[in-house]
Amino acid sequence: MASLKDIGLAAGINILSAFIFFVAFAILRLQPLNDRVYFPKWYLKGLRTDPVHGGAFVRKVVNLDWRSYIRFLNWMPAALRMPEPELIDHAGLDSVVYLRIYLLGLKIFVPIAFLAWAILVPVNWTSTGLEFAGVKNITSSDIDKLSISNVQRGSERFWSHIVAAYAFTFWTCYILMKEYGKIAAMRLQFLAAEKRRPDQFSVLVRNIPPDPDESVSELVEHFFLVNHPNNYLTHQVVYNANRLAKLVKKRSKMQNWLVYYQNKLERTSVRPEMKTGFLGCCGKKVDSIDHYTTEIDKLSKEIVLERDKVTNDPKSTMPAAFVSFKSRWGAAVCAQTQQTRNPTLWLTEWAPEPRDVYWPNLAIPYVSLTVRRLIVAVAFFFLTFFFMIPIAIVQALASLDGIEKAAPWLKPLVSVPSIKSFIQGFLPGIVLKLFLIFLPSILMMMSKFEGFGSISSLERRSASRYYLFSFVNIFLGNILTGTAFQQLDSFIHQPANQYPITIGTAIPLKASFFITYIMVDGWSGIAAEVLMLKPLIIYHLKNFFLVKTEKDREEAMDPGSIGFNTGEPRIQLYFLLGLVYAAVTPTVLPFIIIFFGLAYVVFRHQIINVYNQEYESGAAFWPDVHFRVIIALIVSQLVLMGLLTTKRAASSTPFLIALPVLTIWFHIYCKGRFESAFSKYPLQEAMMKDTLERATDPNLNIKGYLQHAYVHPVFKASLEDADEEEDVMSLKWETESATVPTKRHSRRNTPLPSRVSGTSSPSMLDGIKNDLES
Amino acid sequence: MASLKDIGLAAGINILSAFIFFVAFAILRLQPLNDRVYFPKWYLKGLRTDPVHGGAFVRKVVNLDWRSYIRFLNWMPAALRMPEPELIDHAGLDSVVYLRIYLLGLKIFVPIAFLAWAILVPVNWTSTGLEFAGVKNITSSDIDKLSISNVQRGSERFWSHIVAAYAFTFWTCYILMKEYGKIAAMRLQFLAAEKRRPDQFSVLVRNIPPDPDESVSELVEHFFLVNHPNNYLTHQVVYNANRLAKLVKKRSKMQNWLVYYQNKLERTSVRPEMKTGFLGCCGKKVDSIDHYTTEIDKLSKEIVLERDKVTNDPKSTMPAAFVSFKSRWGAAVCAQTQQTRNPTLWLTEWAPEPRDVYWPNLAIPYVSLTVRRLIVAVAFFFLTFFFMIPIAIVQALASLDGIEKAAPWLKPLVSVPSIKSFIQGFLPGIVLKLFLIFLPSILMMMSKFEGFGSISSLERRSASRYYLFSFVNIFLGNILTGTAFQQLDSFIHQPANQYPITIGTAIPLKASFFITYIMVDGWSGIAAEVLMLKPLIIYHLKNFFLVKTEKDREEAMDPGSIGFNTGEPRIQLYFLLGLVYAAVTPTVLPFIIIFFGLAYVVFRHQIINVYNQEYESGAAFWPDVHFRVIIALIVSQLVLMGLLTTKRAASSTPFLIALPVLTIWFHIYCKGRFESAFSKYPLQEAMMKDTLERATDPNLNIKGYLQHAYVHPVFKASLEDADEEEDVMSLKWETESATVPTKRHSRRNTPLPSRVSGTSSPSMLDGIKNDLES
Repeated sequence: MASLKDIGLAAGINILSAFIFFVAFAILRLQPLNDRVYFPKWYLKGLRTDPVHGGAFVRKVVNLDWRSYIRFLNWMPAALRMPEPELIDHAGLDSVVYLRIYLLGLKIFVPIAFLAWAILVPVNWTSTGLEFAGVKNITSSDIDKLSISNVQRGSERFWSHIVAAYAFTFWTCYILMKEYGKIAAMRLQFLAAEKRRPDQFSVLVRNIPPDPDESVSELVEHFFLVNHPNNYLTHQVVYNANRLAKLVKKRSKMQNWLVYYQNKLERTSVRPEMKTGFLGCCGKKVDSIDHYTTEIDKLSKEIVLERDKVTNDPKSTMPAAFVSFKSRWGAAVCAQTQQTRNPTLWLTEWAPEPRDVYWPNLAIPYVSLTVRRLIVAVAFFFLTFFFMIPIAIVQALASLDGIEKAAPWLKPLVSVPSIKSFIQGFLPGIVLKLFLIFLPSILMMMSKFEGFGSISSLERRSASRYYLFSFVNIFLGNILTGTAFQQLDSFIHQPANQYPITIGTAIPLKASFFITYIMVDGWSGIAAEVLMLKPLIIYHLKNFFLVKTEKDREEAMDPGSIGFNTGEPRIQLYFLLGLVYAAVTPTVLPFIIIFFGLAYVVFRHQIINVYNQEYESGAAFWPDVHFRVIIALIVSQLVLMGLLTTKRAASSTPFLIALPVLTIWFHIYCKGRFESAFSKYPLQEAMMKDTLERATDPNLNIKGYLQHAYVHPVFKASLEDADEEEDVMSLKWETESATVPTKRHSRRNTPLPSRVSGTSSPSMLDGIKNDLES
Repeated sequence: MASLKDIGLAAGINILSAFIFFVAFAILRLQPLNDRVYFPKWYLKGLRTDPVHGGAFVRKVVNLDWRSYIRFLNWMPAALRMPEPELIDHAGLDSVVYLRIYLLGLKIFVPIAFLAWAILVPVNWTSTGLEFAGVKNITSSDIDKLSISNVQRGSERFWSHIVAAYAFTFWTCYILMKEYGKIAAMRLQFLAAEKRRPDQFSVLVRNIPPDPDESVSELVEHFFLVNHPNNYLTHQVVYNANRLAKLVKKRSKMQNWLVYYQNKLERTSVRPEMKTGFLGCCGKKVDSIDHYTTEIDKLSKEIVLERDKVTNDPKSTMPAAFVSFKSRWGAAVCAQTQQTRNPTLWLTEWAPEPRDVYWPNLAIPYVSLTVRRLIVAVAFFFLTFFFMIPIAIVQALASLDGIEKAAPWLKPLVSVPSIKSFIQGFLPGIVLKLFLIFLPSILMMMSKFEGFGSISSLERRSASRYYLFSFVNIFLGNILTGTAFQQLDSFIHQPANQYPITIGTAIPLKASFFITYIMVDGWSGIAAEVLMLKPLIIYHLKNFFLVKTEKDREEAMDPGSIGFNTGEPRIQLYFLLGLVYAAVTPTVLPFIIIFFGLAYVVFRHQIINVYNQEYESGAAFWPDVHFRVIIALIVSQLVLMGLLTTKRAASSTPFLIALPVLTIWFHIYCKGRFESAFSKYPLQEAMMKDTLERATDPNLNIKGYLQHAYVHPVFKASLEDADEEEDVMSLKWETESATVPTKRHSRRNTPLPSRVSGTSSPSMLDGIKNDLES
């Protein structure tokens, strides 16, 4: 039970730390040296270049213009200035819609907060429940006087809370529905306004049955010539290039080392030497530069061999293919229909964007997919409810006794007081923290194992798992004491109507804890986000050791991306807290509103200046966002019901039962009304675009355009690596940017390795090349 | 707690009553007088005629051949003799697959019963649990000695039950999967082997948006010409002919009365008179025949006017249409894709068969549909859990005190001892029974209100509601004491892990009750089904009063139909009982096996000789059947878990947790693997049939064939009524049956009013007419 003073103190500390982060950011971002860390997006777009030309060396590194330091917060209005349509051009629809999640938070909570402070807070404040209950061993605080706890049992005042719950629900649903409609319209608008893209014409076909007489390629061609005679155009089979990708990756690592040693040679003028054994610690001493040069040559030869093998060996053809059609209409038809009797063969779905494809998963057969789904579901259940068990074991091992038992020879070291206190104080916390840092990767691995075919769907799946995990372990875990498993056990042994009561009674008590949580995780966390500490350090390390050419410097940039799989569930936690506390402890609301406002500005800035889009899914994630807010709404209603039951306001509780029923119905309605805009492509739209295109561009060679759109990125990468190709390529680039000036820009700036797939993302190069040839 | 003797007695009574039913049936069915009651299917097919020609009058009415009475059960092997493919031709796929549900029961339960009696019964019998527990106030019986109750608490013998539960689950799943695959193949085979049908080429379009400039018909034509330019052929808008249908119905009722009075005149030679007032009790006396003749003339004129109005007034056009395509491929594409941005407009789905269409529902807009769904869901919840409340009120009113209070003038009547005892003894039971008789109609009304567009989907929906109702009120209602609402209340106030325990402990105690239930409802009920008492009486009444011509006699037949909406949920109750008791009290299994065997024979006989198919959905109901057996399986596993927990076999219970998880996964697998065969039409199949048809019948006038396939039945009916049309029609019929001899037969025999839609079902007449014209 924290008093208002304690909260004030925590707020002060967090405001201060946020302020420090902002000041540090303001100083660092103005240094030309850090320019590529804080404005990589503009470099990738080719609209900003290094401040190399002119001026003294110092000015290239440090900004000496004192005036620019004064207005250290002026990036904030700048971030808000770019209008939405321009932002869509600049960073894609995904980013803009992601920002709208924060706006949604503001839209929902600002009016709710006003209403709650205008009605509920006075009602609570003027009540005297806590004075009466004072005897009952509950220590009250100022915050509790503002909360529902202060209302006497059985009081008629609870009617105001019930009415408020209705008002909050209707307002939230109204905003949600408007937003869903708006975003569905934006998505369709975006898809309609877009230039020609290969995925509009293509369908991903999986589970092609094996045929003894025909190769996969022939089979695909015959099948679609027969069954889509008027629409089929061409296809590209998927090769199993995983080994090739590995080799290419290895070579590029070696090239990094080569550059590192060459730089060293230049600086020190001593030929660097190294040992060939494990981690360079043992083995024969050799000249580093020679060693890496020969190794790279060897690898290059191996890569050429492997590449030939992959393209010519029928065994490395996967039973999957990208099939392209003559028109968007044809592709829309094929993607939405079933092809054969057996619904597990010839599975068709919309092809993801070329750079969104997650290649390793394209060949998993149907039965294996269902088994994988079962395994992952069970594994995730255990991860959520039993993750504390291995951590407790590690913590026990990492404790003093554990170390002494496992490694008695460390005893003298452990007895040193400073080390001892470190182990006792920090190690258990660090183990837990480490696990939580790795959690998104674990969840992403699960999604990959489950077999999704595109990076965007991998991220969406991981996000929903992360949400479930944090709902159980952060929300419930902090409200109820004990580990998730203990909660599960106690829930199973409780009557069903006890659930909301247990949570409901605990909710008001935890308000001050969650306020602190919001300030630490929300305020300071968001402020730290803008500082980009990790990319800053890594960039400077790389810059010092590895960068030789301009191209190297470009590769040293790590703009990162929004990270939907971790970011969105985090926001959802704030929706949950806001809705749950809206009717119970309205004190929480202002803190949440500040979080949403701050995060909106910070992420808008980051999206404009830093993050590089990895793929464009056209806001396909919105149904998930909507669904989770609905869940938060229902949880808040159930919790309030439980709370009012304990408050002996039982006669009024039945009025709350209608709320979850209506909310669920509202969800079903919205699902039917809007969801298909996010999963289907209406034929009318397809036909309109086809007709338009046929009128404006009657001589279009669509086959040439699509022929090589879906090539495994490693083939492109190795093409690009080969020197003789490079010139031709760069020529194409230049020509292209002259012919198609605007939109295409935002789609081609992904020269960096994709964070998830680990292989360099395919650019639109080939499509463009064919465009030009035709 | 019934002993084996009691059960034996009950079995004896039920076997006797079943025997009596069968003997009565054997005698009645052999009388030529009843021929049309017991063999209507053959009359409808035109393969059997009245035994009018030749022989004395007596022989026409009574069968005097004593030999035919001896083998009074020989209809049973006769029913089994017809092979399945012939049965599909004869009665359609729906009926055959419906029979396979009974076969499924036999396939699942015969091996399970053998295993249970071989392993579990000896294990239970040799245990001594009940002797020990005897002190604990539990009266044991012989049946209990064979059940799991006899195994001591904490005994190691429970392992055999766990292993058996695994064996039963795997066997059931294996059979279910094989059956699902088989029926999916049968469905596709059936669809592929079928002759050309209008619904293969047609799509039902609903929610056509209003347009100020164009009529619905023009709008549809333009929309599909633009968006399906290569495939669109023609369309038929839906008219709001509900009032017209009402008028036609009224006229046919009047015609019945006219015939009745004409018959009376013939017999008595006195011109019958009647009063025109309420129910013929008051008002002016008129000559009946004149009165009805003028009334019918008036109505006929009104009908002509209304028909003109419906066809010409744009206001009576509904925003729905049947759109036909040039090929099956085009229809398959349109049915499976989304047409416009707004997914609630231009909704396309497969057109049901013409006779399966439920016309009144075709114009309900989307928003209204979702609201209706909510209302029906809430209403069904109250119906299931609170239906006892109004019944209790009626029962209270129908009690002695109630009657005396409500209607004091009845007091002298009520005091008569015989009436008094009748009211006390029977009235409350009759009220409940009446409600249960009306329940299917109530559920069907709910489904109609919900807005489904085809009779088959109405029946499927009603079936799933009926299943839920009987699960709660028959299964749970008999296991746990108290009304459904009291159970609901106690469940809410119980811990979640208590549910299976509460049911589990009660389950073995109720075995003898359910055995009696199976014998009464299953054995005698099925035997009564074959007797067809109600149609028999009604036929003879009609025959006596109304029949003048051969056509009248045909209309007096009421062959009925399978009645999927009540029949299937009833079978599912036996699956539930069988699976739940398999591991607990194997004594129940033989009774269930006898039910399945008997019902299979009886329904096969009825389907061959009596029932008339109302529509053909191609076994579209199988996913529901499969799903409900899965639910029964999961319930049985949970119940066993609960039971074993109370038996202190807790250490073995965790081994049972895997079963429901695996079963749910199995269901998901089957859903993905097979379900789409029941809802989608693969393009490959469509293309194959199109190509075949184009090769065999290159000059087909498909437009002529489809032009009038979907006309509201009332237009056809009024066409048929008009005398001048009739001759032409009957001519067509004859010609047609000469040209297309086999399959078409099974599709055209629905001259009777459809039971559900209340209007006469459309025949294939128009299609055939156009076939001939082309």
